[in-house]
Amino acid sequence: MTTNRVFLLEKRPDPDITDETLRLEERPVPEPADGEVLVRNTWLSLDPTNRSWMNAQATYLPPIPLGHVMRGITAGRVVASRFEGLEEGALVSGMGGFADYAALPGKSLTRIPDGVDPRAALSVLGHIGLTAYFGLLDVGRPKEGDTVLVSAAAGATGSLVGQIAKLHGCRVVGTAGSDEKCAWLTDELGFDAAINYRKTPDLTRAVREACPKRVDVFFDNVGGAILDAALASLAMRGRVVVCGGISQYNAKKVAGPSNYLALVVARGRMEGFVVLDYLPRANEALAALVPWLQRGELKSRYHVVEGLENAASALQLLFEGGNQGKLLVAIES
Amino acid sequence: MTTNRVFLLEKRPDPDITDETLRLEERPVPEPADGEVLVRNTWLSLDPTNRSWMNAQATYLPPIPLGHVMRGITAGRVVASRFEGLEEGALVSGMGGFADYAALPGKSLTRIPDGVDPRAALSVLGHIGLTAYFGLLDVGRPKEGDTVLVSAAAGATGSLVGQIAKLHGCRVVGTAGSDEKCAWLTDELGFDAAINYRKTPDLTRAVREACPKRVDVFFDNVGGAILDAALASLAMRGRVVVCGGISQYNAKKVAGPSNYLALVVARGRMEGFVVLDYLPRANEALAALVPWLQRGELKSRYHVVEGLENAASALQLLFEGGNQGKLLVAIES
Repeated sequence: MTTNRVFLLEKRPDPDITDETLRLEERPVPEPADGEVLVRNTWLSLDPTNRSWMNAQATYLPPIPLGHVMRGITAGRVVASRFEGLEEGALVSGMGGFADYAALPGKSLTRIPDGVDPRAALSVLGHIGLTAYFGLLDVGRPKEGDTVLVSAAAGATGSLVGQIAKLHGCRVVGTAGSDEKCAWLTDELGFDAAINYRKTPDLTRAVREACPKRVDVFFDNVGGAILDAALASLAMRGRVVVCGGISQYNAKKVAGPSNYLALVVARGRMEGFVVLDYLPRANEALAALVPWLQRGELKSRYHVVEGLENAASALQLLFEGGNQGKLLVAIES
Repeated sequence: MTTNRVFLLEKRPDPDITDETLRLEERPVPEPADGEVLVRNTWLSLDPTNRSWMNAQATYLPPIPLGHVMRGITAGRVVASRFEGLEEGALVSGMGGFADYAALPGKSLTRIPDGVDPRAALSVLGHIGLTAYFGLLDVGRPKEGDTVLVSAAAGATGSLVGQIAKLHGCRVVGTAGSDEKCAWLTDELGFDAAINYRKTPDLTRAVREACPKRVDVFFDNVGGAILDAALASLAMRGRVVVCGGISQYNAKKVAGPSNYLALVVARGRMEGFVVLDYLPRANEALAALVPWLQRGELKSRYHVVEGLENAASALQLLFEGGNQGKLLVAIES
């Protein structure tokens, strides 16, 4: 391949991602500058947070300027190096973007150790695993016997959160959008209960019934109705970990939690976090995640879309709940 | 007086307090049982939380059953005692309710020390002072140089919060509903800035301008638009102390903070608390509050309504912002 296919952020979503949001273009393969390496991206991680990066307003990262390559987390191999720490052929993960190739500062990249599946480097052993590990344990601080509720529990992050909570002796309840996903949670991942929010006429009641001792930790990826339902069942000194709010990312006006005053009655806490802050502590998480994974105590599944050209349309799966497991694009199809 | 005027909770507000909510009735003066004292209530504290106690749903206290005496925090003097620790003539504060007399367990009462104004026992040296002190310092945890924003800053709690924050070296900004209140905050209490929310066309912008280094601690008594404005200006690791949400107490549907996802970007925390939990640590607060008060470093003002019979209508002042300082009823008029 001598050309570099890239998706450019053409138009900011308002609020939905449409066919006009990202535009595929062919460009020359970039030249790495001094201190950079050229990476042949092989896997692209699609994440709900990609949507927030498209906004004009800064979030925890600056907005992507219009006309620039769409930001994305990738795995790939070094095909040319002007950085001492990474040799040609090295497998790396980093911010390669929605593109075949990226020239990146060598020190912005993480080497993928030998024998590690690059897909795992983009999920359980990468940003997803760290998000689940530190979000649950550092922000949520569950104790043995606590009830942990997880939204988007069949998603990449949620499914790990639930399993890590089980490994810590918690009662774990998840919400998901299909019976198949719910069955996966309870039958394969060991969740104590799962709620299909699409089929549940009264989510507040469903949460109350599934969490008879109330909710000590709610790990929220979704926002909206499930956040209100969780607050209505919050245990004394309960903690709401705000990881994301995918139900609200495409909302013209975000629906704030109308039950937030439950925080007063419960002496509860609602706290946000960004996984980037935990990168310096990554080894701490990996020291736990790797053995769990090796012993088969953490399961995950991948939903692979073939071909970079399908990345833009595949992104929609996240907002429709169409993916089953960590959504990845196999760039070389 | 041989009869006992009492306000009974006749009808639950739906959502507004009306003339039918509380009904004044004459009853015989109660007889104290063993372990109880009979208190002649002299001062009744009117607090926003009175509204929440009227609901059918439990909050941090059980709901008041219909037909029962309206719960209220009072000061008064013991006129008959069947409890060893309190003699006739002792001044006490406690849950005397909207009534002339109350028979109460002696151990539920707090003795008002000699020389302490009973009005202060219901405000700066009572539940209001503890709310401000522990809510700000224990939940909000301001550091010197932090920007502290307070809503309902001219109210009983808010005015103390702001002054305590000033005593801790913070930049303090308050919101209030009149120019007179705002002038009191800046000219008398030493606030760095005050925002008249009724005159401000863009509250988000007003907060941003008044808090150029963003908001490290937001002490919220109000909810609604000011909560969203504060979240929009939340500093990194900023803290929102949820003390109350008076703008929402009479709402059919509570407006949740639509900017709550700012907690993610700011790695922020939103936390509720109830002052009752801090009663065992009251002396810790008083050890700071009393000297501040004696040195004139904490100022407060009282808004006194004469006559128990006016307690029900006076309660409305809180929701209209009609009171100037701690709202109290002088029961014997």
